[in-house]
Amino acid sequence: MSKLESFIRRMMAQRDCLNFAAQRIEAMPGPVLELGLGNGRTYDHLRQIMPDRDIYVFDRNGRPFASFAPPDNRIFRGEVLETLIQAYDVLGKTAVLTHYDIGTTNTEKSSKLAERVSPLLNRLMYPGSLVVSSVAMPFSHWSVVPLPASVKPGRYFIYRVDGLR
Amino acid sequence: MSKLESFIRRMMAQRDCLNFAAQRIEAMPGPVLELGLGNGRTYDHLRQIMPDRDIYVFDRNGRPFASFAPPDNRIFRGEVLETLIQAYDVLGKTAVLTHYDIGTTNTEKSSKLAERVSPLLNRLMYPGSLVVSSVAMPFSHWSVVPLPASVKPGRYFIYRVDGLR
Repeated sequence: MSKLESFIRRMMAQRDCLNFAAQRIEAMPGPVLELGLGNGRTYDHLRQIMPDRDIYVFDRNGRPFASFAPPDNRIFRGEVLETLIQAYDVLGKTAVLTHYDIGTTNTEKSSKLAERVSPLLNRLMYPGSLVVSSVAMPFSHWSVVPLPASVKPGRYFIYRVDGLR
Repeated sequence: MSKLESFIRRMMAQRDCLNFAAQRIEAMPGPVLELGLGNGRTYDHLRQIMPDRDIYVFDRNGRPFASFAPPDNRIFRGEVLETLIQAYDVLGKTAVLTHYDIGTTNTEKSSKLAERVSPLLNRLMYPGSLVVSSVAMPFSHWSVVPLPASVKPGRYFIYRVDGLR
């Protein structure tokens, strides 16, 4: 399969997982987190499928097209391992959906970053909330959520935050 | 439609147009040109669907992942309005398929560049060859080719180089 073909399938998986997760958390109040802004395409999708949610964006240096940049007071700029800690002071444990899409072409590095992010992200997530991720995040307090039928296993990931009941 | 959704549709249109065009020129000998390397995903697709073709890449500063970079002797680096002229000395009028995907978020600028590229590109294209493009290229010596059924008109473009018979 060409890189173009697998890229298309990954983007479709991302879209389908986010649409699915947004429906699942519809009844829960709380903000949405977008980790990794990139060019802002997915941020634009999030705000279109969840127009009434506050969406907080975490990004090191994303420069989205001006027409779909987040408002300045919704961006945590800097290294995600630091900004996730700062975000707890602002948001507490209130987030109901996170989209995690920070990765490099280096799979091992991406996995290691995801492993370090998981516990910091977990602090921000309300029990029962969902994490949709482009990389596997095998964190002990999260359960694997079955993917929508359109998404091939391993192409995208959805986790439910078990939390403490 | 969100930016993510329209991006997915554009990538699918690109793939479908390239697959269609590659079949159409199958019997014609000659190289393929990729104008705009970007991250190399589409280059990888081109070489997978046309493994026996020489593919020449034109790019100002594309940095594809190493595993699917073109060989050094198949890249024309620099401003496309200059490298297309240089390429004529190397290739003559032999190319049978061009994929043009140089654009900015500024539609007007993209159209103007395409307009300046068209006559320079035309010199390199064998009569009956095809130009697949992400932007409209209304050049007087090219005919509009009907798109594959999967592609919405205006989302991608295919032209046939009429040439002089």
